[in-house]
Formats: sequence, structure tokens, C-alpha cells
Amino acid sequence: MKKLINGPESVVEELCGGMAKAYPKLLSWDRDHMVISRQTRSSGKVVLISGGGSGHEPAHGGFVGKGMLDAAVCGDVFASPSIMQVYHGIVDNRSDAGTLLIIKNYTGDVLNFEGAAEMAVEDDGMVVEKVCVNDDVAIEESARRRGVAGTLFVHKIAGALAERGASLSEVKAVAEKVIANVRTMGFALTSCTVPAQGKPTFDLGEREIELGVGIHGEAGVSRIELAPSETIARQLLDRIVPDLPYSTGDEVAVMINGLGGTPLQELFILSRDVATILDDRGLSTYRTLIGNFMTSIDMQGASVTLLRLDDQLRDLLDDPADTAAWTSC
Amino acid sequence: MKKLINGPESVVEELCGGMAKAYPKLLSWDRDHMVISRQTRSSGKVVLISGGGSGHEPAHGGFVGKGMLDAAVCGDVFASPSIMQVYHGIVDNRSDAGTLLIIKNYTGDVLNFEGAAEMAVEDDGMVVEKVCVNDDVAIEESARRRGVAGTLFVHKIAGALAERGASLSEVKAVAEKVIANVRTMGFALTSCTVPAQGKPTFDLGEREIELGVGIHGEAGVSRIELAPSETIARQLLDRIVPDLPYSTGDEVAVMINGLGGTPLQELFILSRDVATILDDRGLSTYRTLIGNFMTSIDMQGASVTLLRLDDQLRDLLDDPADTAAWTSC
Repeated sequence: MKKLINGPESVVEELCGGMAKAYPKLLSWDRDHMVISRQTRSSGKVVLISGGGSGHEPAHGGFVGKGMLDAAVCGDVFASPSIMQVYHGIVDNRSDAGTLLIIKNYTGDVLNFEGAAEMAVEDDGMVVEKVCVNDDVAIEESARRRGVAGTLFVHKIAGALAERGASLSEVKAVAEKVIANVRTMGFALTSCTVPAQGKPTFDLGEREIELGVGIHGEAGVSRIELAPSETIARQLLDRIVPDLPYSTGDEVAVMINGLGGTPLQELFILSRDVATILDDRGLSTYRTLIGNFMTSIDMQGASVTLLRLDDQLRDLLDDPADTAAWTSC
Repeated sequence: MKKLINGPESVVEELCGGMAKAYPKLLSWDRDHMVISRQTRSSGKVVLISGGGSGHEPAHGGFVGKGMLDAAVCGDVFASPSIMQVYHGIVDNRSDAGTLLIIKNYTGDVLNFEGAAEMAVEDDGMVVEKVCVNDDVAIEESARRRGVAGTLFVHKIAGALAERGASLSEVKAVAEKVIANVRTMGFALTSCTVPAQGKPTFDLGEREIELGVGIHGEAGVSRIELAPSETIARQLLDRIVPDLPYSTGDEVAVMINGLGGTPLQELFILSRDVATILDDRGLSTYRTLIGNFMTSIDMQGASVTLLRLDDQLRDLLDDPADTAAWTSC
């Protein structure tokens, strides 16, 4: 394993510390509970909290800031934060307007975020609501669908509405609207390597691609021979577009998300191929985001996310966001 | 070679096309000459043009936009654009206020940008000035020093002054001030792979790191055994800090630049280690930028850049920039 780290055991503490140190005006860091919060708390607005396992940088700490999250709770690499960690994230960012938890649909995250919410409600009398993101179309059964890169659109749009001063029920409703309209599928050219394991999570041949891979090195749905970007884009969209379905005339936001080790050169090429196919299918692209948003450590590969927009979602998507990793372009 | 491309011969055209397609409000693209320009030209301001070989994405097209570059001329992967390409970039973005070329110090780029400037001056009566960036401290001899990630600070700060309406001589002077105060050094954990070559440019053992590597797979200055991030940070800063020298009390901007295949997780850890060492040495960090700015295709590794600030440079660094890849945090 060849990594730029100091030791597998200190990865999460050091990366959170590095993030907090790099953005002192933006972020504060509770080292005991690995919670990254805004440096300047907004009072009176609905609080948005997300997080999960680490290894998805810049998610989720990179999306803490005005217009997006209030706090991100950081578990160990690919492991849910504990109930107590999430609980501290909730109570330490308490607001009279209430709290919304944005949970990615993994068993550990769901259990621990829900457990923490119960504690905050029962012990502290807080009002805590939650939404669960499951945008990964690689899995057929909706209840088992994972939350992947589409989660960032939930953070952005619900965060914008909260910043405008909307109520908890309004913020939850718009988060659920995003979840209902967002779909993602990814693929891997290489496995990720978890620092503590020291070797790739799965084997993939020099001429193989894994389609439908998750963001923790979970198996995909099919393995195909190494193919041009155009072919991969088509196979992803053949699964994403009919799923909602997205229809001719729909306006969409597109996210081309690198999984950590993919050069930007290749993400721009994939973005071009996705744009061409969307044009051919009569979908209108309102905005494209390209970069590393929800990664899988050092995995080479990418995911494509479509979000169907309406007037409300488009406006909220365009609201300003002052975070380390969201892009305004 | 496992890459997300359609073919080695179409990489540059497709990535430029992908970038232009993704940011239609921001960028226009002259496909014949591979010039990425602003969609909305500013009239009456000094025009800033940069570029060079491709393979450094998001540089340089990602830094075209209000507050930074007016145009980026894109050569083939790791190859200078031709005189005619640069010439078209210059004349097609003509302004009465004059043009400044920001050239990275490589023989091909210097020759072709200078040749194009001569043509524009002699044939078209334009006023064209140039600066040459050589921030890479890995090479002792100043005339041979390469332009690397520090170039982005030149784009940002000279771009901000041009946007404020300064004259060509003022914009050139501030660009030279940045060049005089910026230093960079990089290292590689792996080689890059040029798509047309299909194999890594150099061999690096499983437990070796190349220090002082360039952004085109050029050899570094020393090869060391795989070491913790802290050790690497110290070795880089031991070379960068005395070079200017940066002294106790100096205020600096820091760029932690991934070389293309490095996960953000690791860049945050490196950033933490750099910050700790700078604190120890009494340098005051005004702002830290972390991400992929000037890459070497898919190389795993990073570079560290320091820019010594004064009031003028700090203010211009903080001016807004509306580009695909600059970060406002």
C-alpha cells in the first residue's frame, strides 16, 4: 500500500484536523466526537446534520458552511459514526427551529443516526426529523438502495431552503423532493484500498470494469470488459434514465463525480459523453458539476447523477453556498 | 493502461469539449485552435492569456473567467501549443488595453508564446507583454526552473488586478511580484501515464517516492524510501522555505495541490502536516487552498506552494473569481 498518510490508525483524525486547520474561518472541529461544525453558527434556522463513514472526502466536512450543512459527523473509514458521536453533533448544534438529519441508506448509519435522534428527542426535548437518501440505481430493490453522490444535492437544496428561514417541515419536504428526483450510478476501474486493510478491497482485472459499484468497495452489478468512455456513459444512463424515469423535456442537473483517484482529464471526457447522450434523449441540462464530491478513498472510477429540476429546486440549487468543496459554477 | 477515455488521439479535443459543454455560460471554445475563452468578453481591460500542454486539468481552462484568465491555449498532452494556436488565442481576445501572456518556464512554451507575441505585435500592431513563471525549487539554477502550481497564484492575482481596470504595466508588475514571492516543490508516489504512450513514464518501486518531480513526469532530484506524510512535508519545506527565504513573521498563502490521482483524504493529511511545520517556523498562514489545480494527468503525489503576501497580494487573492476550478474558500 502506497499512501500519503502517517499511519492507518490516525487517518480520520488527521484528515479532519487538516480540514479544520485549513478553513479556520469556516469550520470548527470537536475532536472528541469527530464532528465538524460551522465556525459561525446561525441562530434560529433549521439545522442540517449529515455524515457517515470517512473515506468520501470532501464529503461530508467539505459541505459544512452557510447554505449547506451545519455539521458533519465523521465515522472511521467506511464505518458509521457511533450513536454518541451523532448525538453530540445534534445537541451541540441545537436550534429552536429543529434539526434535520440527512442519512445515507446504510444499515449502520440508519441505526446510529436514528438512535441518536431518539436520545436527543427523549433526553433533551429536541425536535429532530430525518430523511434517508437512496439514489443508487445499481440495486433494484428500493429499500436496499444505497445513498451515494446524489446526497450532495440534498445537502445543497435543503441547506439553501433552511438558510432562507423555512420551517423544519418545509426543509424536510424539499429534501424528500430531491430524494424522489435524484438517481446515481457509478463504476470502478480499480478497487479502493482501505488504509487499515492495506490491500485493495476487491480484485479487478487489467481489462475489466465493475459497473454499479458502491462507495465502500461494495460489489457492483456487472463486470464488463474495459470500454470507451462513451460506452460506459451509455450503460450508466441506460439504467439511470428509465429508473425515475427522466423524460424528454425534463430539465436536469448533472453531477460527474470522481471516486477519488480519477484524473479530472477523464471526468471532463465522461462529462462530454454524458452530455451528448442527454442531448440525444431530449433532456435539458441546466447545470453540470464535475469533480470529486463523494469519493471512495482512492478508487479510480466515477458516478453519474441526474436530478430532475423544477422551479423551486433550480432556484435553491443556485443559491450561494460558502463551503470548502461546493462549486458555484 | 486503464483509462476512462475514448482513444488516446482524441483526449485533448474531448476534454476541452467536455469543459466547454459543462460551463456554457462561462466558456467558449475555438475547436480549430484549442483555445478556451470567456463566453462574455470584458472590453477595455488588460487581457490575460496562459496555457501550455494539456494533462494539467483543471489548468488552464478551469481558470478562465472573470477575475482570472481571459483565455487558455491548450496544446496536446504535455506538448506546447503551436505558435499559430497561441497567436489565435491572442488576436481573438484582442483588447485596446493590451495583452499579458503568462508562460510556464518550459522551452517549447517560451518559444511558441514569444513567437506568437511577436506575430501579434508585428502583424497586428498589438501590445503584448509576457511574464515567465519558474516557481519549482527542485531545480537549483533559476533559469532552468519550471513553472508549476504557483502559476495559479499568478493567474489569480494578476487577473484580479486586470479586472479592477489596472494598466498593462501594473498588471505585469503584480504578476512579477507574485513570481518573485512564490515557490513550489512536488513529489510523486507513482508515475503518470500519458495516454498516447500507454505505460508509466518512469518506474518507481513500491516503497519509493520521487522528490522534486515536475508536472510532466520529469525526473525529480532525489528518490527516498516511502515515508510518512509528516516526513515528506518537512523535506519539501526544508527546500522551499530557505529558497526565498520565507522568514519568521511572513504571512503566506499555501496551496496543497494534488497531482491528479491523489485522494483528497491524503491531501488533507498533508495539509495538516504542512500547517504544523509552518506554525513551528513562525510563518503565518493567511489562507490554504487544497485540491487538484495543476495536475500531471493521473500521477499520485502532490506539491506544496508558498506565496509570501503583502497587503496588495492579499487583497487581490481575495477578490472574487468566477471560474470552473478556483475555490473561494
